[in-house]
Amino acid sequence: MRYRNIIDISLPVQEGMVCFPGNPSVEFTRIDTGSSYISSIIMGSHTGTHIDAPGHISAGLAGVDDVPLQTFIGPCRVLDMTHVKDVVRTEDLEPFGIGAGERILVKTRNSLEGFDAFRDTYVYLDGDAADYVAGRNIALFGIDWLSIKKRGGPEAADQRPHTSLLAKGIVIFEGLQLGDVIPGDYYFIGLPLRLLLPDGAPARAILLQQ
Amino acid sequence: MRYRNIIDISLPVQEGMVCFPGNPSVEFTRIDTGSSYISSIIMGSHTGTHIDAPGHISAGLAGVDDVPLQTFIGPCRVLDMTHVKDVVRTEDLEPFGIGAGERILVKTRNSLEGFDAFRDTYVYLDGDAADYVAGRNIALFGIDWLSIKKRGGPEAADQRPHTSLLAKGIVIFEGLQLGDVIPGDYYFIGLPLRLLLPDGAPARAILLQQ
Repeated sequence: MRYRNIIDISLPVQEGMVCFPGNPSVEFTRIDTGSSYISSIIMGSHTGTHIDAPGHISAGLAGVDDVPLQTFIGPCRVLDMTHVKDVVRTEDLEPFGIGAGERILVKTRNSLEGFDAFRDTYVYLDGDAADYVAGRNIALFGIDWLSIKKRGGPEAADQRPHTSLLAKGIVIFEGLQLGDVIPGDYYFIGLPLRLLLPDGAPARAILLQQ
Repeated sequence: MRYRNIIDISLPVQEGMVCFPGNPSVEFTRIDTGSSYISSIIMGSHTGTHIDAPGHISAGLAGVDDVPLQTFIGPCRVLDMTHVKDVVRTEDLEPFGIGAGERILVKTRNSLEGFDAFRDTYVYLDGDAADYVAGRNIALFGIDWLSIKKRGGPEAADQRPHTSLLAKGIVIFEGLQLGDVIPGDYYFIGLPLRLLLPDGAPARAILLQQ
């Protein structure tokens, strides 16, 4: 495989990092074995850059290790949504002609504002737009915040940003850091840890620039 | 990138899995947020498939996030060491003509015996062989057990399987599952979580068959 450059789109995982409310805080403990150092890690399955597996919304759906590995590797498009004020809607997505099997990442102002503080005012996907991308039969959808759906207010009750995608087996990547990424075409590699969990797993995600 | 097949060479991470003595046990706790399920994870930085970063042996050396990402992606060779009884020695490696910049994985009887029980009789790399591969200036060395060096007995005091490689910045992958891998040429992708730890990190590793 030829590539010109690798862009790391993963958030660094460290103590004190911002987590979505309700998720465990990251704790690292250094252990001296005598001849080497190791660490004990406490973190959440949805901490930092991670996947939502279908089992995130229902115990009966596919877990992390049930998702075909092909999903996580292949061409992707980073769509420029930095102009969007609060919410990515169907009308923002339609001009891109999203097709079946695509890996779609949206770059919003979230990446520009950074990940140093938790904000309820992050840009999210609305329920209709989730139905729209699910209807396009994409392979994977990624966003640059710790959640794809609104938090707080009446619209937070609309579960479709999770359910429309996950019930169809479309994996969601959250916590992507796209600040350094110029929207366009890339080769995506986003590998979740092989955790035997139904709901999700931390992942390392990179873009190859070809 | 074209490939015919993906082989997962990562160990599944789950409660009760075998860990190297002294490492924390894996614990998963399910959390119901009301609209979704998440999990709390306790594990070690050297649990399952993982990298040893140079900082594993000395606090002054490079940590996980200091290793160039190019190291983790590229052509590799899986060497057949399944005939080796106890220890991979220089004379076992010499016939392969290992060259600078190579990613070298050794398949031993460890992969054939499986990872369901901890054994002190695993196949390891000896100190002279570690000096030899370090001298070849390889990029990465991987082995199919939770440690690259002997445990127990006088030879366990020889730290070179760690120090010769890591002091040169050569990353070690441990816990690779190579049972399904026919020795030969592959494209390696092994991405550690982006943990800001000096000593190592769990990783997802795959081979692309081209």
